[in-house]
Amino acid sequence: MHIFHTIAELRQWRKTVANIAFVPTMGNLHDGHLALVERAKQEAEHVVVSIFVNRIQFGQGEDFDQYPRTLAQDADKLRAAGVAAVFAPDEAELYPAGEQQYFVEPPALKHELCGVSRPIHFRGVATVVSKLFNIVQPDVACFGKKDYQQVAIIQGMVADLNIPVRIVAVNTGRAADGLALSSRNQYLNAAERAEAPRLYRALQNIAQAAQAGNRDFAALAQAARDELHAHGWAVDYVEIRQRGSLKTAQAGDRQLVALAAAKLGNTRLIDNLEFDV
Amino acid sequence: MHIFHTIAELRQWRKTVANIAFVPTMGNLHDGHLALVERAKQEAEHVVVSIFVNRIQFGQGEDFDQYPRTLAQDADKLRAAGVAAVFAPDEAELYPAGEQQYFVEPPALKHELCGVSRPIHFRGVATVVSKLFNIVQPDVACFGKKDYQQVAIIQGMVADLNIPVRIVAVNTGRAADGLALSSRNQYLNAAERAEAPRLYRALQNIAQAAQAGNRDFAALAQAARDELHAHGWAVDYVEIRQRGSLKTAQAGDRQLVALAAAKLGNTRLIDNLEFDV
Repeated sequence: MHIFHTIAELRQWRKTVANIAFVPTMGNLHDGHLALVERAKQEAEHVVVSIFVNRIQFGQGEDFDQYPRTLAQDADKLRAAGVAAVFAPDEAELYPAGEQQYFVEPPALKHELCGVSRPIHFRGVATVVSKLFNIVQPDVACFGKKDYQQVAIIQGMVADLNIPVRIVAVNTGRAADGLALSSRNQYLNAAERAEAPRLYRALQNIAQAAQAGNRDFAALAQAARDELHAHGWAVDYVEIRQRGSLKTAQAGDRQLVALAAAKLGNTRLIDNLEFDV
Repeated sequence: MHIFHTIAELRQWRKTVANIAFVPTMGNLHDGHLALVERAKQEAEHVVVSIFVNRIQFGQGEDFDQYPRTLAQDADKLRAAGVAAVFAPDEAELYPAGEQQYFVEPPALKHELCGVSRPIHFRGVATVVSKLFNIVQPDVACFGKKDYQQVAIIQGMVADLNIPVRIVAVNTGRAADGLALSSRNQYLNAAERAEAPRLYRALQNIAQAAQAGNRDFAALAQAARDELHAHGWAVDYVEIRQRGSLKTAQAGDRQLVALAAAKLGNTRLIDNLEFDV
């Protein structure tokens, strides 16, 4: 397995391979990432994984400095998984001027859901993914549905800017108790880890109630917020939206997704659940 | 010569050719465009020219509706010039949702010079060029220096977003009397056409005075504005800037460019002149 730290090295190697599936990550890889790699292997001959903790998608006071960097262990996992190349640039390689000057700006969705509390996040994500696509030039790229709004924005960006990359959205990997796999789970202490699966259960309760006939989506979301709040969570949002467009769900909508973000202590967790009514 | 109206047709053909030089235009081709095509032929095996009057780079009250559409004549010129393929999409092909959702946003330079009076222009240019690059996937693209700020922004965008396209800036084509070739020249009546070369002469006067030792750039620019104003021009700007960065020139700078935009009647003309002191 190649490990490239520079754009020039990656591009030189890129010329020698025809067909690439790409998995962009911030490293600190868990089984959820490895499921993306497995899917990528089905989509193209060679898999490239990028590992880059992208400063421009973190706001002030967020966990950029704290975010775990574990390149050696990540490389071992990716080598074992049969990845062809890892792209692990340092910050000066992707942001040589210090600050990014040109941004890919998503539409209003960037300021909804996670964008309410993270106003620059999706601009930073869209911009770095655009840069990485231009560097790696993959045929297909795999993203996890755990970051549901991110997937929607990447899919929108690719369609709207005519980017020649096929996007594959992969189901969320979960622990046995339902907690969505996330690098941020390791910030949780034992009591918080025991409490954490309530986030997913709250989403399951919404889906079950809706499927049982309750179409008062606002009330369902409010009940979930109340339940989380009663158990010590600081709720960022719980919302029920149309799948695909992520527009606010109306009573007649059939294909839905419930999305939530909430903090346990200092750790912000997100999750979502697609369901049909 | 192929004429493609859809992205799918262009992409299908693109797979069959290895090496492409690209010239994006809004059509109504003159000798300045054909000089770009000649340069493109030196840069790659096949030349692709796009013809698309891009609504999102025109502001309210600008000449989007009036802008001349002359596809048949343009195609004749490009066929004679040895172009391999023309990409001439209609608006629904590039903007199928009606409105562009994701934009490539340039930095503060977008609001200087031409950006003062055209606040959405460079966002529209950067976005459509990004889209066209993603569709055509050229190795190299040729732009005319007549749109000097545009070239600077495209070069900045390509560097900053790691777009795998080499940008070639081509010198401005001029009429015998010095007027920069432009599709908008045809809006001029006979008296305006006779007056129009004064714009370039004003820039030449700046360069000559600076080269003769006058480094009071603010005064030189003001003199040019006064001269144009005295001859009936509505001056948008005359400025002296550092080449490359387009930062405001300081007395010690050596590599400079004088840029101007001004209206004769209803027609807005722009020009520029690079010079060393």
